[in-house]
Amino acid sequence: MEDLTRLTALAGERLRLLGAHLATAESCTGGLIGHLITEVPGSSAYYVGGVVAYSNEVKVQLLGVRHETLVQHGAVSRETATEMAQGAQRLFGCEYAVAVTGIAGPTGGTPEKPVGLTYVAVATPHGVQVKRFVWSGNRSENKRLSARAALELLCACLRNDG
Amino acid sequence: MEDLTRLTALAGERLRLLGAHLATAESCTGGLIGHLITEVPGSSAYYVGGVVAYSNEVKVQLLGVRHETLVQHGAVSRETATEMAQGAQRLFGCEYAVAVTGIAGPTGGTPEKPVGLTYVAVATPHGVQVKRFVWSGNRSENKRLSARAALELLCACLRNDG
Repeated sequence: MEDLTRLTALAGERLRLLGAHLATAESCTGGLIGHLITEVPGSSAYYVGGVVAYSNEVKVQLLGVRHETLVQHGAVSRETATEMAQGAQRLFGCEYAVAVTGIAGPTGGTPEKPVGLTYVAVATPHGVQVKRFVWSGNRSENKRLSARAALELLCACLRNDG
Repeated sequence: MEDLTRLTALAGERLRLLGAHLATAESCTGGLIGHLITEVPGSSAYYVGGVVAYSNEVKVQLLGVRHETLVQHGAVSRETATEMAQGAQRLFGCEYAVAVTGIAGPTGGTPEKPVGLTYVAVATPHGVQVKRFVWSGNRSENKRLSARAALELLCACLRNDG
């Protein structure tokens, strides 16, 4: 976990420099990203909060993911990840929001959407960046890989904006 | 962490037996409890989601903690923990909700409310149980101790209801 907390410390420094705030919207990571962000002392200066949107109802009702998006593209899709990040940005009034949706396993996979398929999204003041991954670890490893990918994307977006 | 995931597996078994659902409302633990709950395969059967209420605004606006409660008793109090748990129960429509509010440190303590002071609350269909602790670890240890205490209280409540 130590390299992950180093990533969150780096993201925190960049958020401080920008005077910006961060929110999280987590599905398969279940709160791991928020946990890692708050391992950094003083993170309350830039981390406002997050939603663990484990059920689809929470994605729709709290994050404002459109029902049609879930029907057309599924909960694990580029479109849902994008709307989750935008929803968290809006709900928490933050300049930046990071979102993850994926299939951690061991069950829940299909031929089109295998176990390990994950989308991470970062909403910034200039738009949304999304990345797609297919992890091949166990449930716990897939969650950590997803959290790392989300934090790396966040750091990259913050570097571009700094 | 392994003993903590064993606790979440136990809580999950009891929730399944009861056919009940769980939500989380985390302040100082920042998402750690949600992360631990979702380490268990199949946890989506009973875990609906949660709010990381790191700022007071999130406690009020999403969880419905009363402004007067924060002014009179503070964010780290028995009263706020109780309202956070009840708010999560209501927001996610769950029979059970677990909430944590505390001062993880290293800063933020006062003579009346020292670093390590933590309240954990579990809302059940029959009312709310709250416990007070004062941890003496570092930030990361205090978060883990708080998560463990919350999960232990949840397991105890579920055993009583089983």
